[in-house]
Amino acid sequence: MATELNRNSNLGTFFEARSVAVIGSFKEAWMGGYGVVKNLLNFGFCGNIYPINPSYSEVLGMTAYPTVNHVTDPIDLAVIITPSHVVPQIIEQCAPKGIKAAIIVSDGFAETSREGARLQRQLVGIARSFGIRIIGPNTIGIVNTATGLVTTPYYTGYNRIQRGAIAYASQTGIAGAQALPLEDCAYPISKICDFGNKCDVNEIDLLEYLAADPETEIIAIHLEDIKDSQQFMATARSVVAHKPVLILKPGRSEASAKAVASHTGSLAGPDQIYDSAFKQAGIVRLDTWQEFLDVPKVFASQPLPAGNRAAIVTVSGAAGIIAIDAATESGLTVAALSSVTIDKLASLSPRLASNPVDVGQVATLVNVGDFTATLESVMAAVLADSGVDCAIMALWATSASEAEATADMFRRLRQQFSKALAIWIYGPKLSARDELSRQLEVLGVPTYLNLETAAKALGIAATYAKVKSRHNW
Amino acid sequence: MATELNRNSNLGTFFEARSVAVIGSFKEAWMGGYGVVKNLLNFGFCGNIYPINPSYSEVLGMTAYPTVNHVTDPIDLAVIITPSHVVPQIIEQCAPKGIKAAIIVSDGFAETSREGARLQRQLVGIARSFGIRIIGPNTIGIVNTATGLVTTPYYTGYNRIQRGAIAYASQTGIAGAQALPLEDCAYPISKICDFGNKCDVNEIDLLEYLAADPETEIIAIHLEDIKDSQQFMATARSVVAHKPVLILKPGRSEASAKAVASHTGSLAGPDQIYDSAFKQAGIVRLDTWQEFLDVPKVFASQPLPAGNRAAIVTVSGAAGIIAIDAATESGLTVAALSSVTIDKLASLSPRLASNPVDVGQVATLVNVGDFTATLESVMAAVLADSGVDCAIMALWATSASEAEATADMFRRLRQQFSKALAIWIYGPKLSARDELSRQLEVLGVPTYLNLETAAKALGIAATYAKVKSRHNW
Repeated sequence: MATELNRNSNLGTFFEARSVAVIGSFKEAWMGGYGVVKNLLNFGFCGNIYPINPSYSEVLGMTAYPTVNHVTDPIDLAVIITPSHVVPQIIEQCAPKGIKAAIIVSDGFAETSREGARLQRQLVGIARSFGIRIIGPNTIGIVNTATGLVTTPYYTGYNRIQRGAIAYASQTGIAGAQALPLEDCAYPISKICDFGNKCDVNEIDLLEYLAADPETEIIAIHLEDIKDSQQFMATARSVVAHKPVLILKPGRSEASAKAVASHTGSLAGPDQIYDSAFKQAGIVRLDTWQEFLDVPKVFASQPLPAGNRAAIVTVSGAAGIIAIDAATESGLTVAALSSVTIDKLASLSPRLASNPVDVGQVATLVNVGDFTATLESVMAAVLADSGVDCAIMALWATSASEAEATADMFRRLRQQFSKALAIWIYGPKLSARDELSRQLEVLGVPTYLNLETAAKALGIAATYAKVKSRHNW
Repeated sequence: MATELNRNSNLGTFFEARSVAVIGSFKEAWMGGYGVVKNLLNFGFCGNIYPINPSYSEVLGMTAYPTVNHVTDPIDLAVIITPSHVVPQIIEQCAPKGIKAAIIVSDGFAETSREGARLQRQLVGIARSFGIRIIGPNTIGIVNTATGLVTTPYYTGYNRIQRGAIAYASQTGIAGAQALPLEDCAYPISKICDFGNKCDVNEIDLLEYLAADPETEIIAIHLEDIKDSQQFMATARSVVAHKPVLILKPGRSEASAKAVASHTGSLAGPDQIYDSAFKQAGIVRLDTWQEFLDVPKVFASQPLPAGNRAAIVTVSGAAGIIAIDAATESGLTVAALSSVTIDKLASLSPRLASNPVDVGQVATLVNVGDFTATLESVMAAVLADSGVDCAIMALWATSASEAEATADMFRRLRQQFSKALAIWIYGPKLSARDELSRQLEVLGVPTYLNLETAAKALGIAATYAKVKSRHNW
């Protein structure tokens, strides 16, 4: 069984933990041990939760224990959020309990001072001597959507992350459940991991784990430094044959490389080296935080495009032209439609017989209901064309009440066609845009805040597909 | 008086119109003459509205007239939204009424067919013979926030555009009131203009008008083609001495240049020519639709930076490093803080004594209230530094209820400091992000969907300031 397999792998004890001890303060506050327990409860963690603190007998309805050793049942994972100087001692207490995995949320280690770095080294020594693996310190930990495991100590404001194919990893908490609109935007997620200071578990361990994780189909990693570049690239190369690996690595400028050095305590090396190493390993390098969040969506829900020929369907001629620039700069080409397709489009209106197709041109001729029908006929025509590998769409969302009809259209299109889509939604009301986005993403149709990211996502997917087929992956 | 001045200028009759005839169908529909009248009423147009259609005696409570010549009061502007073949005849009817400005919303002209192109030429001939200026055809027309003049024929879903300094112009309706979340996002706008087919009024006319418009302080234009490049550049050069001109000109790729040619009927010319011509004229060229919408905000509400030295304040170390890349790639440098500033920051916490400042590092040490106070002290320290010209911030919005405290912080900071700010807001709830964004933008603090655009906006402002001072503009 998949879960068993993963529990036996390197990081399985973390992600597939069935019992979690939370060690820290349980004062009702915006962050802390209280937050961890609350999030585990809110996200419906399906295992056992043990709050650990000698001053409490009960936390949020759960029995609290003075130490982990007072718990009679076995504990898989310790989440530690205490003052830093206490952490080594907590780890020592974990050892006799047989705990093999610890997430150290606490900060005050190598990221702060020499004293902190010394404490971190001490911590690692103790953990190693007991065979305990550590994620962190200075981390918000991990998420496993399959089990409801969410260790972030901050209030998230929502209780449900859509389970899906994307694994996000980051060197800081900025990719965590407390920072991303994971409920509003329906990102389909398998795992999240914040490495923190990477005193033990690092990007190589995680890549190996995610490669074997049956829930994960696409891996997006934000990395400030790479501990062992050679081994990382070798590991990545074997992973990308099965799952795309997308990396956002800041530090392109001299100033940011310097800041990385002071932030992580390790030298990043000249940036161009990464560019070529990533390319050789088949890793896709992303440029912005928004790409990091949004490009994986197209891999998570769409088939890989068989080629790079894109249909562009918009409700504005200008959007079509902007999309051409974005598409060609992302490695796509504007598909040459077949004469059959051109005829189909022309039968709707002679003004629609081209790629990009600007359906807005017939807006004045029909009513709203007919407009959606026209849009659907146009989409069906271009997606049926064997010279079209994928489609970029720009949709105008005017009111939340119209979202359902548009979602129905995509529901029907998806029954007939399985080509990759990426949708930019714009319009006069954020609420209408958000509602349409929500309904489409639930259906598995990825939506984007801008046309450029939509085109780039498809371009990256098409490029990955090409590299994959060239290597017979 | 400013309004008088503009009424006398070239396009004043359009933008400062005090009486508008809407000529078209008044069937209750999602678009059409009905939509124009409804929008004029919804946006509180302060002039007179005359629906014109022989089949109606009343539209939305307003008296309707068979033709413009049945109206006894003077009419400044005709908004025409009839079948295309009727338009020349309508223009002829406008002449005896003394109407000198017509917005032709109708499509079916040069953008559709040879027949349409012929009709357009005929139309221009008739209009010229009567001295009538035309915006369009195939346009959604204009907006003047000062008078509530909104001629878009589509339902917008909201009734208020914030009056402010940005003029947006576009060659299609995609920059119109029906396409942008102008209420949700509080873009401060003076005028909007959709040129449509540009059969008469073009980008040069508009630049001249906006240059003299006291409400407009920054001009953003989306252009697919330029009718008379030489004159346009000369006009732009004189305008940028007073007001920044930002242009989004798609057509970078061969494929899009070809599409532009078929979309607009005019050749765009090799793209690199525009790059250097824009540069020579002092025009800022934008790359994406999102930049087109969001970069002007920093000019509209912030002082021009005296230099390019940026403070970066975040609640995440990773965001700080991403911001450095974005800042340096946008022409900014990471400000070297003075020893006084470093001391001030160190007195808050030794971990805050750097630029970027990661205030998130002290999150674990304080409660939420103290956290905002710390953030404010950090901002006050860096903004007081004479070596800091502007600041990029990344803010974490967790709940809508906390927005007010953050807005209060900016209210106090703005009383003390007048340096340019650009804010990226992220977080787990779109509603919280939107609420904070709304509250800050009402205060005149520009917010961005991503860090890169925030940095780019400040970088472009700093570059414009430098060019301006070099030329003694």
